[in-house]
Amino acid sequence: MAITLAVDCMGGDHGPSVTLPAIFEFLRHDRDCAAILVGREGDLRSHVDAVAAEFGSRISLHHASEVVAMDEPVASALRNKKDSSMRVAANLVKDGQADAAVSAGNTGALMAISRFVLKTLPGIDRPAICSILPSQRGATYVLDLGANVDCTPEHLLQFGIMGSSLAAALEHIERPSVGLLNIGEEDIKGNEVVKRAAELLRASDLNFAGNVEGNDIFKGTVDVVVCDGFVGNVTLKASEGLAQMIGGALKAEFSRNVLTKLAALVAMPVLKSFRRRFDPRRYNGASLLGLKGIVVKSHGSADQFAFRCALERAAEAARQRVPEKIAARMAAAGVFTVASASTITIGS
Amino acid sequence: MAITLAVDCMGGDHGPSVTLPAIFEFLRHDRDCAAILVGREGDLRSHVDAVAAEFGSRISLHHASEVVAMDEPVASALRNKKDSSMRVAANLVKDGQADAAVSAGNTGALMAISRFVLKTLPGIDRPAICSILPSQRGATYVLDLGANVDCTPEHLLQFGIMGSSLAAALEHIERPSVGLLNIGEEDIKGNEVVKRAAELLRASDLNFAGNVEGNDIFKGTVDVVVCDGFVGNVTLKASEGLAQMIGGALKAEFSRNVLTKLAALVAMPVLKSFRRRFDPRRYNGASLLGLKGIVVKSHGSADQFAFRCALERAAEAARQRVPEKIAARMAAAGVFTVASASTITIGS
Repeated sequence: MAITLAVDCMGGDHGPSVTLPAIFEFLRHDRDCAAILVGREGDLRSHVDAVAAEFGSRISLHHASEVVAMDEPVASALRNKKDSSMRVAANLVKDGQADAAVSAGNTGALMAISRFVLKTLPGIDRPAICSILPSQRGATYVLDLGANVDCTPEHLLQFGIMGSSLAAALEHIERPSVGLLNIGEEDIKGNEVVKRAAELLRASDLNFAGNVEGNDIFKGTVDVVVCDGFVGNVTLKASEGLAQMIGGALKAEFSRNVLTKLAALVAMPVLKSFRRRFDPRRYNGASLLGLKGIVVKSHGSADQFAFRCALERAAEAARQRVPEKIAARMAAAGVFTVASASTITIGS
Repeated sequence: MAITLAVDCMGGDHGPSVTLPAIFEFLRHDRDCAAILVGREGDLRSHVDAVAAEFGSRISLHHASEVVAMDEPVASALRNKKDSSMRVAANLVKDGQADAAVSAGNTGALMAISRFVLKTLPGIDRPAICSILPSQRGATYVLDLGANVDCTPEHLLQFGIMGSSLAAALEHIERPSVGLLNIGEEDIKGNEVVKRAAELLRASDLNFAGNVEGNDIFKGTVDVVVCDGFVGNVTLKASEGLAQMIGGALKAEFSRNVLTKLAALVAMPVLKSFRRRFDPRRYNGASLLGLKGIVVKSHGSADQFAFRCALERAAEAARQRVPEKIAARMAAAGVFTVASASTITIGS
């Protein structure tokens, strides 16, 4: 099945200078995919014309006159920029012209716009941001990473269902194990929200492994780690900061003098292989889950390789029909509410 | 001024086999310090007798018939073990026989016992656990790390005052900068507790630098980072997990084959210097702050070097009279309440 991505070419710190070459590379490798390039026609036309012969009908341009700034308040982006590139991309998913939208723009604005345009799936109160972190055993899916600062136990249960569906689809695991992030493994640990969430998760049909702690994310104890957006965001950013500090210190130690620089030359292949394994660019592309359609958020500072990884992640989520799978799981879990049961239209 | 430490010799994963040699090393280096070794006389007597000639009156043994198990429920430790080594150590501080207590035992039990025995300082609602994390610019003091899962804005303000006092004393900084851990730098970010806490911190006489994010802990943006115990605990453990994963992977890459092992030999001095800089043992010794006395918690898995670092940290906190400084700051901040103002007795 051909997959079409609607790509916000204007978002991120670098805009078209990164998004366009990443899209072209992606189309060269994923030959059953097409891309609709969304953004200012004046900025994009000549670049699209230059590759028109190579990609034919697999590439097209959709004009959007506005761009949401990286530091723009969410309310302003939602109310005043109805023709922004990220909103037009979301609209293309809603109208069924694209299977997924990808943007490196302002996270808060992308979430608000996606939610407004696509709406949430039946039974989902709040969409969540889910990203992948490397672990000793492979990868851990963690959500929420900042969309929801205050969560009820029911929200955390819904995050478990959404994260489990995504991990199942992208990692091809039948029943991903789900852990609840807490400050101890024992049931008595944590605040009231977490204790009640553990009860809900245990009563659900998820493969719930109980409480996990911060270090379990990187140990790979479970496939999916559920937490509120405040804890998730702080943990993600602290991990990024620590990895940067360690990387910087390693570089500094090897650059200290002539002898250490020689040692670096000898150690280079090993260090490169080490760096490749934890290259954060490979994990780029967070999923906005719980919407009636697929939206993937790239890191704002993504380079060409990182942005292409986000495009690939979006294409795979579309192939695996992740929103349909979440909807089915919600219905099976009985979370499906009568009020919202009247219409399920996903991405069209 | 001579400093006397009351050391729980029985706590931790290794008990006296680690605590005793660490204490002896500590006494050899810190010649103005004394230690009261607390624990089962049968386990300790021969070891103390063996060094009696070397240390003279600087070392003594105080029998405690019970030991709190590492996995023992807090309530059981508090109610049933009135002669536990950690409780006896706290009592020695309360009675003024020691200037600080150090234990590698069960964190929850140590906190509950310390709070019960020593009581909190006037104006302090809840004691907090404060630890030091390495940063690109030196060290960051982070609290709370798990004593309080639900915090009010007032608690977070108190943590700011306590952390600032500790950092000022141990790092010799006049007015340590204090950041509030949040999911964005803007004032509008975060939940209601954090927003209100920011107002309180801004109105206080602390050197408040505003909101900081997870990565700022390792960047060293501020000297002290304040957060609730849930977020702090998860962040600390996630960082430990990530550091372990990276360390393990680096080792694995260098052990892959003969060539990489040769590279490791060449790179060894550089890698050692790198490892030394981030050696978690150097940062061992978390302070239980807000009590009328000094209690330092060592990591349960601490080895001899790590435990000695915790002893040194406790001695320095005693030299700098940290609880008195916190009490003075609380009084100056006007947080000092009339109800609790009748008696201030610190450690005696």
